[in-house]
Amino acid sequence: MTTDGQARRGRLRLAHGEIDTPAFMPVGTRAAIKGLTHDQVVTLGAEIILGNTYHLHLRPGDDLIGRLGGLHAFMGWERPILTDSGGYQVFSLSGQRTISEEGAAFRSHIDGAAHLLTPESVVDIQARLGSDVAMIFDECAPWPADRLVVESAMERTLRWARRGRDRFLTVQAAAAPEVFRATPGQMQFGIVQGGTHLDLRDRSVAGTLAIGFEGYAIGGLSVGEPADLMYDVVDHTAGQLPLDRPRYLMGTGMPDDLVECVARGIDMFDCVLPTRNARNGQLLTRHGLISIKNARYADDLRPPDPECECPTCRRHSRAYLRHLYMVGEMTAATLNTVHNVHFYLDTMRAIRKAIEFGTFDHFRQEFHRTFSRRQVPK
Amino acid sequence: MTTDGQARRGRLRLAHGEIDTPAFMPVGTRAAIKGLTHDQVVTLGAEIILGNTYHLHLRPGDDLIGRLGGLHAFMGWERPILTDSGGYQVFSLSGQRTISEEGAAFRSHIDGAAHLLTPESVVDIQARLGSDVAMIFDECAPWPADRLVVESAMERTLRWARRGRDRFLTVQAAAAPEVFRATPGQMQFGIVQGGTHLDLRDRSVAGTLAIGFEGYAIGGLSVGEPADLMYDVVDHTAGQLPLDRPRYLMGTGMPDDLVECVARGIDMFDCVLPTRNARNGQLLTRHGLISIKNARYADDLRPPDPECECPTCRRHSRAYLRHLYMVGEMTAATLNTVHNVHFYLDTMRAIRKAIEFGTFDHFRQEFHRTFSRRQVPK
Repeated sequence: MTTDGQARRGRLRLAHGEIDTPAFMPVGTRAAIKGLTHDQVVTLGAEIILGNTYHLHLRPGDDLIGRLGGLHAFMGWERPILTDSGGYQVFSLSGQRTISEEGAAFRSHIDGAAHLLTPESVVDIQARLGSDVAMIFDECAPWPADRLVVESAMERTLRWARRGRDRFLTVQAAAAPEVFRATPGQMQFGIVQGGTHLDLRDRSVAGTLAIGFEGYAIGGLSVGEPADLMYDVVDHTAGQLPLDRPRYLMGTGMPDDLVECVARGIDMFDCVLPTRNARNGQLLTRHGLISIKNARYADDLRPPDPECECPTCRRHSRAYLRHLYMVGEMTAATLNTVHNVHFYLDTMRAIRKAIEFGTFDHFRQEFHRTFSRRQVPK
Repeated sequence: MTTDGQARRGRLRLAHGEIDTPAFMPVGTRAAIKGLTHDQVVTLGAEIILGNTYHLHLRPGDDLIGRLGGLHAFMGWERPILTDSGGYQVFSLSGQRTISEEGAAFRSHIDGAAHLLTPESVVDIQARLGSDVAMIFDECAPWPADRLVVESAMERTLRWARRGRDRFLTVQAAAAPEVFRATPGQMQFGIVQGGTHLDLRDRSVAGTLAIGFEGYAIGGLSVGEPADLMYDVVDHTAGQLPLDRPRYLMGTGMPDDLVECVARGIDMFDCVLPTRNARNGQLLTRHGLISIKNARYADDLRPPDPECECPTCRRHSRAYLRHLYMVGEMTAATLNTVHNVHFYLDTMRAIRKAIEFGTFDHFRQEFHRTFSRRQVPK
């Protein structure tokens, strides 16, 4: 591993291959990156993708996926996969959820069927899915929330982490023969909670480290809090995590968030932003954001980003992309997604190179100079 | 050109390159093949695609496309394009259409705005689009229809063809400076009408040949009539067309229709079937049709067609494709479309090779032995 300040450049060996870090994981919620084929995802250079346990548990079901050999075999994807625990979706998607010490009872957002996820069942589900990295079941407090609510969720996450780790070790030791393990060598990451309260983060880090995991995630951020506050929490929290274990910031974020959090020691990211915003017609470029539906692009023959080497920018104009978006062609979503995912993965490549060369701080300044959150037409 | 019976194996030189015939043209209605990127269309081997004049005239407009350099420049597609005349869509999509000798007045299916297409304006629109092959404006009678209705549409098509040809020659001679020509060397094809009445077809052929075009299309078929009747009309009509000009059967059809109509001397085809049926979950294979939503495929790890070499069949199982379809992932439409378009283009490659080797009749028998219209689960 090479470092440059707090930024870390490493390689993480997973069951289905190595990944270069810092890494961005495109989100393949239901066993597909929305709008893309696997061939496109591979061509864009993604070394690892994320799958959502909540969605896959509901459809097509982890029993079926396990019976077919696990998620890799099922979806025909040979590279590493990280699966979340489903906790976040239980809170954000499902109706009539009831959190108890046992776990989260909820009704499916699809058909209203009753389900129960527990720290143990989430381990079993992810064993059947056979992801390379499984996440523990956590309770993510909303923002803003009373300190007592955040503290309670953090404490419960610690108790659930203990139970989840125990179950994971049992399953991995093949001591739970009723649970099919699609991927021997699966890793499990703990999740640090505590909202924006630094002392709660401290207690969560200490408790999570005491249990011990192959890697550590920072959860409960990117849920609405200001970016500067998020950066402070990441800075404070990442600094307490072991140097020799991967650090994953869950659900973040905008490209400048990635740069800032790499600067604070984060190794792994995921976010639906590049794919979701693509489908909504927003293109992210090194010069800022382009809302492709804007009438000013109707006769603009320039590519979204003239310097970008993605397949979309090499072949297509803003005028064409705007037309496809305005008439509702699904190819619009695909071409926009290709560009946005390329931009994220290319930014990560540039970050890794800058850390290797010891020029990350220069890269960081240049990135902020050209990219901003505001829409900047050229 | 090589022939085998009535089947013809040729090469057609167009402004944007040569195409091998018999050729199938995937339909890119609104300047995109639904669900695919151009890179995918090129990889699948399409040498020519079809664009719809009606749709492009409405959105984004041929004025804009012409100002941006024509359809090729606008959409970033470098190979040949054929555009239809818009007539078929006026009849099938628009509301409140009024056909007069002047042309077709109609209201847009999108916003209700009033439009008028005439034999001359359709030439001008296609000149701005700059397709390699422009079609004349025709009146396509429905099926079934009274003979008088079919005869009247055929006669009007002949009168419109004369006007369209005159306008085309004027525009191509640069004698209509108000009309931007995106593609010098554009060709214009006439269209034979006459429904299923062979004597009306005879009169239409004679009248169309008397005007004289770079190629000839057979229109007014694949509108609901039985396949055998269509084959008879194609057989009767194609035999009267000049040997040295391309013959295009519009809007057909199922893969076995393509084989049967090549056997009757057709060189070019287009149809939305492979792309539309893909989006509806129907996969076409050499062994018949697969409706991927069928529950029997839920745990079927075989590819749609084990012998198929398309990117979808090389990587994915029926179980995965069914899952994507059932949850509504747009990647389902893309993967299914990749397979279906590959199947059509691959069938055309096999047809061309069989004609070259003088084994087309053997190919034709084999094709019918394995492919049928019925759903044939393996």
